Amino acid sequence: MTQNIYDNAGFFAGYSRLRRSVDGLDGAPEWPTLKSMLPDLAGKRVVDLGCGFGWFCRFAREAGAAEVLGFDVSANMLARARGTTADPAISYCQADLETLALPANAFDLAYSALVVHYLADLEGFARAVHDALRPGGRLVLTTEHPMFMASTLADFVDVDGVRTWPVDHYADEGERTTNWLVPGVRKWFRSAGTTVNALIDAGFVIRRLIDWTPSTEQVTAAPELAKERDRPAFLLIAADRPPG
Amino acid sequence: MTQNIYDNAGFFAGYSRLRRSVDGLDGAPEWPTLKSMLPDLAGKRVVDLGCGFGWFCRFAREAGAAEVLGFDVSANMLARARGTTADPAISYCQADLETLALPANAFDLAYSALVVHYLADLEGFARAVHDALRPGGRLVLTTEHPMFMASTLADFVDVDGVRTWPVDHYADEGERTTNWLVPGVRKWFRSAGTTVNALIDAGFVIRRLIDWTPSTEQVTAAPELAKERDRPAFLLIAADRPPG
Repeated sequence: MTQNIYDNAGFFAGYSRLRRSVDGLDGAPEWPTLKSMLPDLAGKRVVDLGCGFGWFCRFAREAGAAEVLGFDVSANMLARARGTTADPAISYCQADLETLALPANAFDLAYSALVVHYLADLEGFARAVHDALRPGGRLVLTTEHPMFMASTLADFVDVDGVRTWPVDHYADEGERTTNWLVPGVRKWFRSAGTTVNALIDAGFVIRRLIDWTPSTEQVTAAPELAKERDRPAFLLIAADRPPG
Repeated sequence: MTQNIYDNAGFFAGYSRLRRSVDGLDGAPEWPTLKSMLPDLAGKRVVDLGCGFGWFCRFAREAGAAEVLGFDVSANMLARARGTTADPAISYCQADLETLALPANAFDLAYSALVVHYLADLEGFARAVHDALRPGGRLVLTTEHPMFMASTLADFVDVDGVRTWPVDHYADEGERTTNWLVPGVRKWFRSAGTTVNALIDAGFVIRRLIDWTPSTEQVTAAPELAKERDRPAFLLIAADRPPG
């Protein structure tokens, strides 16, 4: 079963103060890139796997989606998500994404942001999402970048005057316990290839792979992002279930 | 024009002493993985883009390929390649891979090992290779891993007792001059996503993406490989020109 760290009071309090929690999609610097990977949403059926506070569900409706379903393991997050909308076309459900049964051929877009690094069974998740999409449907997925995760030190280090991100043990895939907001956060570390190949093996065709770093314009506007250009924090993937 | 560093006497002498130059494919620890990404070669037409000493060309013939064409920019390497075989089904030609004109729909397999990081125009190369493959044909490509290349220090650093690989300036794609065997080797740094997306945009379907690290069995047999498990040195990609 997936660790439900978002229902840990300390974690939830810390997470709620992050800029992406306060400002939503516009508080996430990778959002402009991610947005460019989405299909036209007008009239589409959308599922958000790991919907958190529901920012993307609401965005999808504003962009014209006919129906939006948000799943999350966290009761805390869903309670807040439900409190932000009375739109009957948006539904929120609590579910463990590793055991979730989705209807077949039901969605035009599956969206999953910063969730799969919490899942032990990425292969099963990829197959479930593939089958839940209609042929021609798209998955847009983000995960912590393996270069980011594969760092025991998990912070920048100055070496001979150069700010560097220290990577180690990249070959050791599997569970890693880290301290982020609270101690003991369990994540699953996979190489970029392992994530991509799980999607391919589930039947997806990869359309875009982006090691996300902020643009120079973003750094000019928000200088605290400068170090994010030294190593990608997120891996962004667009993949399609082939049509027909 | 691509820098022809392999015809620099000092570089060539150094390169010739590498284990992969002396022992060929079996001297390259990524070869067992790479081999698993190849199609059955019996009766196939093969092109090796950056064939070096011709180790892969000879392997392809031994595996049953009907015809093998090897291209390389280096006269030094081709001279040695030609000296190792009298097989009339293997041809070697000197060419700059950035301006090479290949016949259309002519090959079942295009192989290119550790070459594209020398090319300024990866997009043009990807289109040329795509068009040179028959529909259903495969490209198997390796490049220095961007995590490896994106290190100004370009060596492991001990930080608080942890052996780490220091990554920096990952967002700064483009030409980078490094010192490897000789000073002033020009390479083109691209993120993993940029390389993958160039293949997708050329019409390829990605079949496998591997951030290569040695297996624990390989490290047991060759303990000097242990540090290679801390960060991937090579990115291995298999991609198909779609059939029909």
